[in-house]
Amino acid sequence: MKKVVLLRHGESVWNKENRFTGWTDVDLSEKGIQEAHDAGRLLRDEGYFFEKAYTSYLKRAIKTLNIVLDEMDLDWIPVDKTWRLNEKHYGVLQGLNKAEMAAKYGEEQVHIWRRSYDVPPPPLAKDDPRSPFMDRRYKGVDEKDLPLTEALKDTVNRILPYWNDVILPSLREHNEIIVAAHGNSLRGIVKHLKNISDEDIPQLNLPTGIPYVFEFDDDLNVVKDYFLGDPEVIKKLMEAVANQGKAK
Amino acid sequence: MKKVVLLRHGESVWNKENRFTGWTDVDLSEKGIQEAHDAGRLLRDEGYFFEKAYTSYLKRAIKTLNIVLDEMDLDWIPVDKTWRLNEKHYGVLQGLNKAEMAAKYGEEQVHIWRRSYDVPPPPLAKDDPRSPFMDRRYKGVDEKDLPLTEALKDTVNRILPYWNDVILPSLREHNEIIVAAHGNSLRGIVKHLKNISDEDIPQLNLPTGIPYVFEFDDDLNVVKDYFLGDPEVIKKLMEAVANQGKAK
Repeated sequence: MKKVVLLRHGESVWNKENRFTGWTDVDLSEKGIQEAHDAGRLLRDEGYFFEKAYTSYLKRAIKTLNIVLDEMDLDWIPVDKTWRLNEKHYGVLQGLNKAEMAAKYGEEQVHIWRRSYDVPPPPLAKDDPRSPFMDRRYKGVDEKDLPLTEALKDTVNRILPYWNDVILPSLREHNEIIVAAHGNSLRGIVKHLKNISDEDIPQLNLPTGIPYVFEFDDDLNVVKDYFLGDPEVIKKLMEAVANQGKAK
Repeated sequence: MKKVVLLRHGESVWNKENRFTGWTDVDLSEKGIQEAHDAGRLLRDEGYFFEKAYTSYLKRAIKTLNIVLDEMDLDWIPVDKTWRLNEKHYGVLQGLNKAEMAAKYGEEQVHIWRRSYDVPPPPLAKDDPRSPFMDRRYKGVDEKDLPLTEALKDTVNRILPYWNDVILPSLREHNEIIVAAHGNSLRGIVKHLKNISDEDIPQLNLPTGIPYVFEFDDDLNVVKDYFLGDPEVIKKLMEAVANQGKAK
C-alpha cells in the first residue's frame, strides 16, 4: 500500500495579527513549532517512514517539515521545494489585517475574495515590494507562471501539474511520501483526489498540524483517506470536514 | 567570482563524552546549535547568497545547514544530501570513548588510527548494529561503496568523485554554494583544492562553525581561500592551519 501524507503547517506569527499572509514569508509562531513537533512524534509513533518529501518555497512549511523529519530521525531524506506548493497569492491583500481591509474594500468584498472559487483579489503591481517579480527566490520561475494575485482556482491550476508530473509519479519509486504545505495548496490536492466540486472546495478547511493520509493502490488510485491522531479529535475533524464539504 | 563556502558543523552531544562518532547520527549540542546560528548570521551580514547547498546524511551537518539557511532567509534553496559527505567511518571505534579504546587497543594504536592517512581501524562486522548495511538510509547506496571502516585516504577517495562530478560542475550554474559537512569529509575537499600532501593532511584541523571560503575564476580554478569572521580570531586560525600543515 502506497501512502501520501498531507500536512498543513501550524500557526504563523501573523495568525495572531489576523493578516493575509499568502506568499509573504513569515515564520512559525511558538505554537506552530509545537504543532510540528507533535505531528512528527505522532508520525514516528505510528511507524511512518517517508522516503521523499515535498514542500513549498515558504519557511513556515519548510520549517514544519524539518521539525517533523527531525522528530522521525529522517533528516537525511531528499526534500524537493517548489513555488507550486506555495500558499494562494492574495494580491493586494497580502500584509493587510482585517480592519485595514474592511476600511479599504468593505467586509463583504473581502468575504467574496476569501470564499469564492474564481474571483481573485486585485493584483499587486509587478514592482510592488510584495511582488514575486521583486523576490530573487522566483528568478528561476518562468515569468508567465508568476502570479500577482490568485483566485483559489488559479492556485489549484498551478498545483495540479506538479502533483501529476512530479509527486504522483514518485509514488512508483517510494512507498511513503510527505507533502508539507499550506491551506490552499493542499486544498488543490484534496480537491483533485476526492473530486470535490468548485462550489464546495472553498469551504473545506484542513486542520493545521494534523497528518492527512491518502492510501493508493499499485495503479495509484486512491483507496482511502483519513486523519491521524486521537480518535475523538479525528472523529470531530472528519465530521467538520464532511459538513464543510456540504455547506454552500 | 564564484564562491564555495565550506562549513564544519559545531559541537555534537558526543563531543563532551569524547566518543568517536563517525557515521553515528548524533545530534548537535546546545553549543553546536549556537555555532550554527553565529555562522548563519555572519554569512548573512557579509552578504552571501547561496543558490545551492550540499550536506551529508548525518543530522549534525544537516541541522547546521538548516539553521544557517534560516538565519540567511534562504530556507527555500535546493539542498542535496549525500552519504559521500559523511564523516570518516571509524569502524569498531564508533561509539567508544577514550578510556574504552585505550583499555581495548592501547593509546598508541588509537593514535595511529586517528592520525595516519592510510591505516584504518578494524572494520565493523556487516551485521553489527552500527554497520551501514543495517541502516535503511543507505539502502540506495551500491553495496560495494559502503564502508565498514575507513582510513582518511578512503574518506578522501569517496568524496572526490562527488566534488568533481556534482559540486564543482554546479558552480557553472550557481555563483555561491555552501557545503556543510564534517572534519574529515571537508579535509578531503581542502586537500584536493590546496594540493596538500598525504603526510600533511591528517594534521589539518578545520575550525568548527567558521565559514571557509574558496574563490574560483570562471574556469573553476581556485583563486584564493580565507576564513570569515573576526580578523584577530581568523589570523590565529590561519596560523594554526598553516602550522598544522607543516607539522609532521
